[in-house]
Amino acid sequence: MAPTSFQEPTDTHNHDHLVKSTDSQHPANLICTLCEKFYHLGWVAGTGGGTSIRDNDLVYLAPSGVQKELMKPEDIYVLSIAQQKDPKNRIYLRAPPSLKPSQCTPLFMAAFTKRNAGCCIHTHSQWAVLVTLLLETRPLNTNIFEINNIEQIKGFGKGFQKQGNLGYHDTLRIPVIENTPHEEDLTESLETAMDEYPDTYAVLVRRHGLYVWGETVHKAKTQAESLDYLFQLAVEMKKLGIPWLSDIA
Amino acid sequence: MAPTSFQEPTDTHNHDHLVKSTDSQHPANLICTLCEKFYHLGWVAGTGGGTSIRDNDLVYLAPSGVQKELMKPEDIYVLSIAQQKDPKNRIYLRAPPSLKPSQCTPLFMAAFTKRNAGCCIHTHSQWAVLVTLLLETRPLNTNIFEINNIEQIKGFGKGFQKQGNLGYHDTLRIPVIENTPHEEDLTESLETAMDEYPDTYAVLVRRHGLYVWGETVHKAKTQAESLDYLFQLAVEMKKLGIPWLSDIA
Amino acid sequence: MAPTSFQEPTDTHNHDHLVKSTDSQHPANLICTLCEKFYHLGWVAGTGGGTSIRDNDLVYLAPSGVQKELMKPEDIYVLSIAQQKDPKNRIYLRAPPSLKPSQCTPLFMAAFTKRNAGCCIHTHSQWAVLVTLLLETRPLNTNIFEINNIEQIKGFGKGFQKQGNLGYHDTLRIPVIENTPHEEDLTESLETAMDEYPDTYAVLVRRHGLYVWGETVHKAKTQAESLDYLFQLAVEMKKLGIPWLSDIA
Amino acid sequence: MAPTSFQEPTDTHNHDHLVKSTDSQHPANLICTLCEKFYHLGWVAGTGGGTSIRDNDLVYLAPSGVQKELMKPEDIYVLSIAQQKDPKNRIYLRAPPSLKPSQCTPLFMAAFTKRNAGCCIHTHSQWAVLVTLLLETRPLNTNIFEINNIEQIKGFGKGFQKQGNLGYHDTLRIPVIENTPHEEDLTESLETAMDEYPDTYAVLVRRHGLYVWGETVHKAKTQAESLDYLFQLAVEMKKLGIPWLSDIA
Repeated sequence: MAPTSFQEPTDTHNHDHLVKSTDSQHPANLICTLCEKFYHLGWVAGTGGGTSIRDNDLVYLAPSGVQKELMKPEDIYVLSIAQQKDPKNRIYLRAPPSLKPSQCTPLFMAAFTKRNAGCCIHTHSQWAVLVTLLLETRPLNTNIFEINNIEQIKGFGKGFQKQGNLGYHDTLRIPVIENTPHEEDLTESLETAMDEYPDTYAVLVRRHGLYVWGETVHKAKTQAESLDYLFQLAVEMKKLGIPWLSDIA
Repeated sequence: MAPTSFQEPTDTHNHDHLVKSTDSQHPANLICTLCEKFYHLGWVAGTGGGTSIRDNDLVYLAPSGVQKELMKPEDIYVLSIAQQKDPKNRIYLRAPPSLKPSQCTPLFMAAFTKRNAGCCIHTHSQWAVLVTLLLETRPLNTNIFEINNIEQIKGFGKGFQKQGNLGYHDTLRIPVIENTPHEEDLTESLETAMDEYPDTYAVLVRRHGLYVWGETVHKAKTQAESLDYLFQLAVEMKKLGIPWLSDIA
Repeated sequence: MAPTSFQEPTDTHNHDHLVKSTDSQHPANLICTLCEKFYHLGWVAGTGGGTSIRDNDLVYLAPSGVQKELMKPEDIYVLSIAQQKDPKNRIYLRAPPSLKPSQCTPLFMAAFTKRNAGCCIHTHSQWAVLVTLLLETRPLNTNIFEINNIEQIKGFGKGFQKQGNLGYHDTLRIPVIENTPHEEDLTESLETAMDEYPDTYAVLVRRHGLYVWGETVHKAKTQAESLDYLFQLAVEMKKLGIPWLSDIA
Repeated sequence: MAPTSFQEPTDTHNHDHLVKSTDSQHPANLICTLCEKFYHLGWVAGTGGGTSIRDNDLVYLAPSGVQKELMKPEDIYVLSIAQQKDPKNRIYLRAPPSLKPSQCTPLFMAAFTKRNAGCCIHTHSQWAVLVTLLLETRPLNTNIFEINNIEQIKGFGKGFQKQGNLGYHDTLRIPVIENTPHEEDLTESLETAMDEYPDTYAVLVRRHGLYVWGETVHKAKTQAESLDYLFQLAVEMKKLGIPWLSDIA
C-alpha cells in the first residue's frame, strides 16, 4: 500500500541518528539481524513477512517490499506511539527515502498497544499456512489451533501480565483469523482475536501466516521458533495419523 | 552444447573490463552472489540452472557446466542484444576462455526481448519438477499450474506493462511446456507460452524446472522465491489432500 | 526452574577464569560452538535442549532459557562433581549473574556419574519426538525404539566400558521414558532406563526429545548425529511402509 | 578397522609436505572443503561417508572416524597407487599420527584403478538409503535403480571413456549391492557391479549409502549432487504415486 498520507518529518537530516548505532542490540540493527535469520528459516521468502521492535515509546519497523536478508539499518522506519492520534494518518519520526511503510504496521501496533509487546514478528512460514489449511478442512473447519502434551509448549508464557510459562499438559491455543485482500484490513479481526484470547501471544492468519509477539525481542523470537516447531510437528503428525490433542494425565 | 559458431571477440584483452567491478551490484558480481544463494536453496545442484541479467543493451550470462556456488565474475559471458542478428550465430562481446555458453541463452533472451525483463532465473527446483509431474498425472494431465487464495500470490506482478501486483483472491497461472532433449529447442514453446499467457512472469518446464523473470533483479529473485514457496506448499497440500484452488469469496 | 537453593560462590571474581580461555577446545568455548551448530540442525529451537561437558571433576553447563545460537562462554555454569553432596542443593563453582541453571542439570549429571560420560547432549529434535509418538500409537505402544540393518548403526559404541562399536546386523535399542511436567522429575526414570539398558548411550523422552552422551565430546556429538539420522530415516520409512526391523542374515 | 599391517613411512617428517599447500585446489585442502560442504548436505553425519582424490599416482584419503566438517589437511592419508602390490598390506606415503585409515580405501581404489577416476565420494545420504529400501520392497525386490525423463539425468556422463552426457530420454541406471558388516568386504561386489555396468559412475549400497566417482573432482562432485537430487525426487515421487520410469517419446 502506498503511504497515502503520512507527514514527512521536518528534520532535514531525516532523523538518521535514530537508526544509526554501533550497538548490535540497537533495534535498527537487531531487526536486520533477525530478518536475515528468518530468511534462512524460510519465514520471509520473496519480501513476505516482517519484524518490528518497540523501545519505550519508539517503534522500529522493517519497510515494505524489501529482500529481508539484505535489509540495512537505514531502511528502517521509526514512529512514536504517543504521536499516533489518527490511525489513518501515521506520523513517522524517520522514513527512509524511496521505500514504503509496511502494510503490517497497524498489526504490529496492536501488539504494542494492546499487549505492551516489545517485539512482534510476522512470518509466511509454510508450516503455519499448512496448519490453517488443515484446520479449514471439514469436518474440522475451525478457527483455533490446539495442541497439548508436547514439551516445546513450555516455550510459551502463560499470558499477558501473568507470571511463568505454560506447562507440559497445558493446551496451547492459537486463534486463526481469515485473510483479507489488504493486509491492513486484518487489524480489526486481529484485535478481536486478541480480545477473545487474552492470553495468546500469537494469531494465525488463514492461508497467509503468523503474527507472534513477546514482552522482549528474546521472547518474541523464541516464541516464534517454538510455534514454528509445533506447526511443523503438527503437519508431520497429521501425515502419520497422530492427533494433536491427547489424554495423558 | 558446444558453441558451434560464435565469433571470437577481436579485442585482445577479451573485454574483461565488462565483468570487472568493485561494485557488488554490478551484474557480473550479482550473478555470482545470486547463484551461490540459489545453490543453497537447492535450485542449481550439479551445475543445473542458471541466471542472466540485462543492463540496457548488455546481457550477462552464467556459463554452462560450472559449479554455481563457485562461480566468479571472470566466468561471465556478455553479449549485446542489438548485435544479435542471427539467432544461430550469437556474437559475444566477452567470452571466458575454456568455458561454454549456456544452452539457456535463447530462453533468457526471450525474456529480455519479448518482455523487456531485467533478469531471468532458471532453476531445477524439485518442487517445480514435482508440480509438473503432479499436473501430468491423469485425470489432471494439464499444462497449467493454478493456485489461489494464498497470501504469497501477492508477490507477483499483474503482468507485463501493468501496474501493481496480483491480489489474494486472484488465481496465479503458470503455463507448463514439455521438455526437449536439447535445452535450446525449448525456445519456441517457451515463446509460444509467453504469447498465450501474456501476463505470466514464469514458465514451468515439465520434468525439468522453471524459468522466471522480472523487470529488475529484485523482482526476478523475489518472484522466483515466491513461486518456489508456492510449489513446495502445493506439493505438501497434495500430500495432505488439500486442493490448490478454492472458492473463498 | 528457579535455583531455589544454590550457594553463591564466595569468590568475588565469580571464578570467571573457569570459563575464559583462548583455546577453542576449552569446554566453555566448545559448548557455545556445539549449541550454535545444534541450533542450525533444529535441535534447540526456542531455548529448548542443551549441552554439558565434563572435564575430570568439573562439569560445564549451558544455562536455562537462552538462545542457544547466541550463547557466550561467560553464560556457562561450572560445578564440581565431588562437591555435590546433596542433589537438592547444588553447589556451583561459577554461576553467571542474572541467568538460571538448567533444569537438565540432574539428567546430565546422571550421564556423568553413572556412565562416566565426558559430554551429554539434550535435543528437542522433531524426528526424536515423532519416533516417540509413533511408538506410542497402538498396537505398538512400547517404550523401546529398535532398528537394525542400517549402516549408520555402526556409529554407536557397544556400550559402557565395552570395546568397539555395534555391527551392521546388530539391533540398536533406545529406551523411551514418559515425559513429566518438570524436567528434573525425569531424573529417576532416566536413571532407571540407564540401569535397565546398561549399554545404551541415549534415552528418548516421549513427546519431548533425546538425551545422548559419550565418553568424549566427539563421541557424544557423533552419536547424537547418528541417532538423529536414524530417527529421521525411521519416520520416512514409516511414511513409505518400510519396517524398522528386518531379517537380513 | 584398525590398520593391522601398514608400513610406517620411514621419513621422519612423515611427508607432511604432501598435504601442506597454500593452494585451495590442492587435494588435501579440497577434501576438507568438500567434506564440510557434504556435512551440511547431510551426507556424512556422525563421521559416516568420505572422500578421496587421485592426482596422477597419488591418492589422498580422508581418515576413518573423524567429524567430516572439522577435518584438516594434516588429517589426510596419502598413498601411491604404483606401490600397492598387496591389497592386504597397504603402504602409505603419509599417515597422520593417531588416526586410522578409512575402511572405504579399497572401494575408492576400485574407482581409481578400474575407472581411472580422479575423485570418489561416499555418502550416507538418507535419500540414497531410502531408494535402496524402496527397491528392496516386494514386488520390486531388485538391485537396480532406474529413472528416465528427468532433466537432471543430463548431469551424468555416458560412461567410462565415452564422450558426452546422458540425454533427457535416456534411462539412468545405478546398480545396488548388498551391504556387508565390514565395509572392506564390499569391495568384491562393488567391483562386480562395475564390471556388470561398465558405464556407471556410481553404485548404491543397500541400507548404507552411495559410492560415486568422476574423471575429475568437478565431475565426481556434480554427479554426486545430481544423483542425490534424483534420489530425493524419486522418494517424493513414490510418496505421490508417480512412477520413476515413463514412456515419453
